Amino acid sequence: MQINDLLKSTGEWLRTDGPQSDIVVSTRVRLARNLTNFPFTTRASLDDLQKIEQQIHTIVEELFGSENILMVNTEELDEVDRHLLLERHLISRELTEGKPSRAAAIACDETYSLMINEEDHLRIQAVRSGLDLNATYQIVNDLDDKIEQRLPFAFDEKLGYLTACPTNVGTGIRISVMLHLPALGLTGEIEKVFRSLSKINLAVRGMFGEGSQATGDLFQISNQVTLGKSEEQLIEQIGEIIPQIIKYEREARKYLADNKKEMLGDKICRAVGILSNTKTITSQETMQLLSQIRLGVNLGMIHPTTLEEVNELFLRVQPAHLQKFLGNDLDPQDRDVQRANIVREYLGNAQVEDN
Amino acid sequence: MQINDLLKSTGEWLRTDGPQSDIVVSTRVRLARNLTNFPFTTRASLDDLQKIEQQIHTIVEELFGSENILMVNTEELDEVDRHLLLERHLISRELTEGKPSRAAAIACDETYSLMINEEDHLRIQAVRSGLDLNATYQIVNDLDDKIEQRLPFAFDEKLGYLTACPTNVGTGIRISVMLHLPALGLTGEIEKVFRSLSKINLAVRGMFGEGSQATGDLFQISNQVTLGKSEEQLIEQIGEIIPQIIKYEREARKYLADNKKEMLGDKICRAVGILSNTKTITSQETMQLLSQIRLGVNLGMIHPTTLEEVNELFLRVQPAHLQKFLGNDLDPQDRDVQRANIVREYLGNAQVEDN
Repeated sequence: MQINDLLKSTGEWLRTDGPQSDIVVSTRVRLARNLTNFPFTTRASLDDLQKIEQQIHTIVEELFGSENILMVNTEELDEVDRHLLLERHLISRELTEGKPSRAAAIACDETYSLMINEEDHLRIQAVRSGLDLNATYQIVNDLDDKIEQRLPFAFDEKLGYLTACPTNVGTGIRISVMLHLPALGLTGEIEKVFRSLSKINLAVRGMFGEGSQATGDLFQISNQVTLGKSEEQLIEQIGEIIPQIIKYEREARKYLADNKKEMLGDKICRAVGILSNTKTITSQETMQLLSQIRLGVNLGMIHPTTLEEVNELFLRVQPAHLQKFLGNDLDPQDRDVQRANIVREYLGNAQVEDN
Repeated sequence: MQINDLLKSTGEWLRTDGPQSDIVVSTRVRLARNLTNFPFTTRASLDDLQKIEQQIHTIVEELFGSENILMVNTEELDEVDRHLLLERHLISRELTEGKPSRAAAIACDETYSLMINEEDHLRIQAVRSGLDLNATYQIVNDLDDKIEQRLPFAFDEKLGYLTACPTNVGTGIRISVMLHLPALGLTGEIEKVFRSLSKINLAVRGMFGEGSQATGDLFQISNQVTLGKSEEQLIEQIGEIIPQIIKYEREARKYLADNKKEMLGDKICRAVGILSNTKTITSQETMQLLSQIRLGVNLGMIHPTTLEEVNELFLRVQPAHLQKFLGNDLDPQDRDVQRANIVREYLGNAQVEDN
């Protein structure tokens, strides 16, 4: 498999057929692990890093077969390819720097990926469409068991798994749920929801995780605590909270449809109007308007556009995807024009139902 | 003639067939006059004001015939009708207050109007489509001569015509040209143009004159000085300056079309996209977007919308016009929804030429 083969689909995280995927885009679980006998990556020599990469690489190929896995060394990828993987949530922003011996092993169906020599020696992550906590955890748990049988992980009886950053010590787990919350944004209640979440130690982040800005009303909600609770307890906590947020979003959508019909209709109609007419548009603005379109599609107000098309467009308008599809390095100005062309192509026939 | 008859047309100031009316919306000239034997309006008693009104009223009817003139006492008009006249530039904001014995005599074709007991006893104004300084001045000059033969105006050999505000003393003339300058707005050169104008004592104001904000890239440029120069000299000065500004605007349009094609096309396409889709819109935003539409129509980029339709829409979306056409008192929220309906009706078929 080649990187370009990824472009044939939108990948798992935007697949749209998971549970509650009108609101929950995807569920992601990752584990942070480190090999014994090596310093953490921050203190490891280049030689150490190479050895770590080789050991993990070998075991991954043995376990999963090289035909099912895309192995990439980020140093060998060009800038656009590295960002392509980031935009598909297969690697983190840190790995886009392309430093030596930073690598990733990616399942061809994009349901899981392993990052090598990111902050920790190994990050095991799985993603599933919609709200699917147990199934997603099961994937990483299986991967973790299989790898640990062959490679001993740094583990302390009292603390649990040892990680480069103390915030990951213990389970090393991070459970993240990506939600699309446009109605809570429109009613202004979203800040209140986020304040409540921070009180129970859940973090709210933007679309690309730590340090990224929220865009297109997409928010990642994830656990902050990894120590002192089991993986199952942490999943249970998130599993209780997310349905509450989904409920708030559904209530906000109903409130807008019942009481702010004109405002809601106007937002959605304008988004269609702008996106089906624009000649040049940034990815930031596109995301914001696509968020309204996504809401309109989910409320049955826009035809014949489907949720699949909207999710596909979310991915297609990202800078690296845009450049991959157009096959050359575009400057930002050209990108904005090409992005407008693609958006018009997707949404040119979109009609808002008048009622 | 009744006030409602005015609604059958867009009036003179938006007629679109005057010289250079793609850029110059209209030319307006007004004279400030006061009767001898009465104090200025600020010091006149209610009895004085009544007498002034009656004298002017009688003479106007004798001169022009009541069938050609709409005589209104603003106190007797309701709020919506007063603002209807303001939106048509037939009376000033001051007269919309509806104080006693404030009146107006309006030519049925809206080419001239007389305001009675505004700041001065009499304001004579004429408006013509496009840039038409001499013809417009000729109208007020004729009216002035005819009225002065029957009613002596306060005049001082040394100072000229005496007026309530010293800034009008002398000729009492104000020559205003309303320009549509969207391209200078987009290139950012407009501030420079305005700074140059202020250096030569020309004032720049918004669409409704003194104290009004510029909206929809419409600007009134007028003389500040009324004393020490003849009417002809003042007209000559404006007549030399306005073509310069027109030239700058044309150059800016050409620059944008040649060098910022995508940005220009995007602005115009988005304006069409929003206005043909919106469900609720303020008059301020409508004006701003209609300004882009007007530019697009003038550049031949939008079909089949005509300049006449755009100018008509400029007027139709104003609050009082909206209420007159819909026949009831709407609250601002309802107005925004109805305005969106009208805008969509006018621009639903608008297409931007792809080239």
